[in-house]
Amino acid sequence: MRDMSDSAPPLARVASRSDAEAIGKLLHDFNKEFGEPAPQPAVLANRIDRLLQDKDTTVVLVGDGPDGLAALRFRLAIWSEGLECYLAELYVVPDRRGQGLGRVLMEGALSVARERGADTMNIEVDEPDMAARQLYESLGFSNREGGDGPVMYVYERNL
Amino acid sequence: MRDMSDSAPPLARVASRSDAEAIGKLLHDFNKEFGEPAPQPAVLANRIDRLLQDKDTTVVLVGDGPDGLAALRFRLAIWSEGLECYLAELYVVPDRRGQGLGRVLMEGALSVARERGADTMNIEVDEPDMAARQLYESLGFSNREGGDGPVMYVYERNL
Repeated sequence: MRDMSDSAPPLARVASRSDAEAIGKLLHDFNKEFGEPAPQPAVLANRIDRLLQDKDTTVVLVGDGPDGLAALRFRLAIWSEGLECYLAELYVVPDRRGQGLGRVLMEGALSVARERGADTMNIEVDEPDMAARQLYESLGFSNREGGDGPVMYVYERNL
Repeated sequence: MRDMSDSAPPLARVASRSDAEAIGKLLHDFNKEFGEPAPQPAVLANRIDRLLQDKDTTVVLVGDGPDGLAALRFRLAIWSEGLECYLAELYVVPDRRGQGLGRVLMEGALSVARERGADTMNIEVDEPDMAARQLYESLGFSNREGGDGPVMYVYERNL
């Protein structure tokens, strides 16, 4: 008889500073996979440690590796008394994809954001990244203003 | 003979806490014009005063009214040693539009962001807002990843 616990998806948990090294490695692997310039894992770990101390960043982890992360940034909103939350990064290691870990991370992220008093969560997504877009849409996110208004673009430049 | 100073566009300046009341009024008028729920000017002024104290916000003003503002938010970047800058609001009062004040504000904003050590500036723009999009594009912003990659969307939800 199959043990049900083997098939249950792992729970998301909030990272502490002691996870900074593991987070640095995940972020490094993330950027390397997508061909972006990736600082060394130890450099990223130091930066994450500082961000976690500043309290404006929360990282949600999943799996024993850990096998994935969601990085959230918070700041005071202009238009409300609450916080605004930005999902800066969402990553699952290649050999654990297709097992629902992204959804577990996102549900954990939404829960953390509500607990911290955020009113909104924003994400930037490239048009061809359909797996991510479908996940976000299934969780109630929209790339249309107010859910049914005009499409919202990100404009960006280097300084 | 025409005095050249009459036709020169006004200079942008960085707001101080003593401008919080004027900024609250501009933000209130901004949201009211676009039919969004707008907290009272005094509420917005208090919030701006707090944001200016927290140092993560810089407001650039233009004109004697003042007649326009650019609100910038800063935070430590994850992928670099610098800051990332987000242009949260750009507004020019209705009767001063078409006189280049938006461009003066944006040039001031880019200058402030560089001075503060930001590597990037991001903006969220609705697809039909062609005046803003053309202004941002003329200043080197793109809604394509890296300038010529895939289109970048904002996804958002309330919590």
